[in-house]
Amino acid sequence: MKQNLRADHGLAFLLQFENVAWYQDGAVRILDRRVYPMETRFVTCRSHREVAQAIADMVTQSAGPYYAAAHGMTLAAFECRNDRDPLAYLTQAAYTLSHARPTTASRMEAITNAALACAKQALENGQDLVDALQDYAVGMMETRYRNIDKCARLLADRLPRDAAVMTQCFAETIVGLLLRDAAEQGKTVRMFCPETRPFLQGARLTASVAAQQGCDVTVITDNMPGMILSTQKIDLFTSAADAICMDGTIVNKVGTFQIALCAKHFGVPYYVTGSPDRSKPNAAAVQIEYRDGNSVLEHLGIRATYPGVKGLYPAFDITPPQLVTGIVTDRGIFTPETLSRYYLPDEVQDFPSA
Amino acid sequence: MKQNLRADHGLAFLLQFENVAWYQDGAVRILDRRVYPMETRFVTCRSHREVAQAIADMVTQSAGPYYAAAHGMTLAAFECRNDRDPLAYLTQAAYTLSHARPTTASRMEAITNAALACAKQALENGQDLVDALQDYAVGMMETRYRNIDKCARLLADRLPRDAAVMTQCFAETIVGLLLRDAAEQGKTVRMFCPETRPFLQGARLTASVAAQQGCDVTVITDNMPGMILSTQKIDLFTSAADAICMDGTIVNKVGTFQIALCAKHFGVPYYVTGSPDRSKPNAAAVQIEYRDGNSVLEHLGIRATYPGVKGLYPAFDITPPQLVTGIVTDRGIFTPETLSRYYLPDEVQDFPSA
Repeated sequence: MKQNLRADHGLAFLLQFENVAWYQDGAVRILDRRVYPMETRFVTCRSHREVAQAIADMVTQSAGPYYAAAHGMTLAAFECRNDRDPLAYLTQAAYTLSHARPTTASRMEAITNAALACAKQALENGQDLVDALQDYAVGMMETRYRNIDKCARLLADRLPRDAAVMTQCFAETIVGLLLRDAAEQGKTVRMFCPETRPFLQGARLTASVAAQQGCDVTVITDNMPGMILSTQKIDLFTSAADAICMDGTIVNKVGTFQIALCAKHFGVPYYVTGSPDRSKPNAAAVQIEYRDGNSVLEHLGIRATYPGVKGLYPAFDITPPQLVTGIVTDRGIFTPETLSRYYLPDEVQDFPSA
Repeated sequence: MKQNLRADHGLAFLLQFENVAWYQDGAVRILDRRVYPMETRFVTCRSHREVAQAIADMVTQSAGPYYAAAHGMTLAAFECRNDRDPLAYLTQAAYTLSHARPTTASRMEAITNAALACAKQALENGQDLVDALQDYAVGMMETRYRNIDKCARLLADRLPRDAAVMTQCFAETIVGLLLRDAAEQGKTVRMFCPETRPFLQGARLTASVAAQQGCDVTVITDNMPGMILSTQKIDLFTSAADAICMDGTIVNKVGTFQIALCAKHFGVPYYVTGSPDRSKPNAAAVQIEYRDGNSVLEHLGIRATYPGVKGLYPAFDITPPQLVTGIVTDRGIFTPETLSRYYLPDEVQDFPSA
């Protein structure tokens, strides 16, 4: 299984950037993105509860939690291999894994519920549960790779020959594939990555992916996007999203709203990659996660504030539809106004040329 | 001299927050704001060139460089105490000190030129040059204190009884006096301070001043002001300025523009404290300083990026007049439209009530 996966070009490319969570021999190993690239260290989880804790602790970020949840279900199947009623155990595990972080719970549930359905099917067919769930996890990754591949091509099409792109936070596979596709189209890309405090996903992760691809990449602090958008010729601002509401409202790493507002002010288009969440009609359906405020007061472990000073850490913010130029999906590019058509059967949209 | 100064209530208050540069016995000592509040350490400068270097290295920030320049002139007078032509030496020193950082050069020149004029007068009158220049430096600080005192009262008048204020970067005396005046008016203030990467003036300095005053103060990262303005009831955004153009364009720490744009979006007024610069009619007259990009790649000395990733560090940004509600000066509050009246004789303006 693992050998087959590594031989597949697409997934090998995905693994290169995502350093995914991986089930093997009764454990899930996850690259610790909290210390990368200063250190390359793996967290080894011996139970699905440890996987859920690792997700809550942001050991893995961006798409990593989805893979961790899928492989966490495989680990749960291993944990209950001698149970009489493995489905009861797996149902509980599905809840624990999908609710590790509140803002993304519905998307995580889609993955853990699919894994549960796959487990039921395997039990009916007398298949080995661990094998069946590992097949599911790998299949999910393959599907995701194909979808991101489509998004990356659509986004690359929108770039001029010498492009400057601003990112926000971390969208590893889309960034890696966008740069590959742009190069295939003979386009050069300069990237500007806000560092994304307090965890520095932009500085540590997005910029590393781009540099590994040979891209000219510049990190800026989170107070600079407005200044950079006004002084550098930025062609496009792009981010992934933790949730895309059906009306085109974007929920993403805190700071996205500010950049989108500045981009609108300076006439720079903002393209979001992902797919809309049918459980979220609009911003009213969004629950914003607040994390430990002490993270804000520290810099790579060093505290910088006077005693008594508090910290506040909303992990996400909300960007209203009027600041969004296009939502780049596996089914084409939609505007907030046309986004509800994403779920129409066989709908394929492309965005009118600028 | 020093004893008299410390006995003065106003200046003692100013010294408490500004920890000013100070000439004594052939040296200027400057609190190293790059490490405060983690460490309280002073840089001792034995020549005016070392003072200029300390200003360039951001040992002192906010109003600190103005005091450092004034006391640096006193040190220059000490250096040339045996020269036949001390004015030639002082003229050169005035240039070196005022041009330590490009964006603030014209305001620094106002101080060093006044010191030069004072030195000429002292030579004509047969006074001791060092004494005369130290008198000038102290007098300049007293004037500044009185002006800031007026600004702080005008700003405190604009706060409701339970106020929430957002700041940007570092404006120590105005923050300290604003909190004192608000308390005298029976008002409570909660402060939200963006941390101001890469030097963290907001987290380390502004928040410390507020906490020392007993204020409820929360530090946020620089990607959060938009989110905080949309979710907390913020009554007022305020900052000082590195330059205020005659048309109301504001040059201040990078990030100010983004916050001002978000504040406008959410209907939160933005008040700038300071006085307009007659040498700068508008944004076209502004030169933005770019500092070493490596500062952006580091966090309190720890590097966070992959090899080959670049950093870019514009120290300031430009906020257009349409985002500015009022400019709070020692002569009253002006709008960008009325600001040119600041220099009319005996003009005293107050801003119409909101």
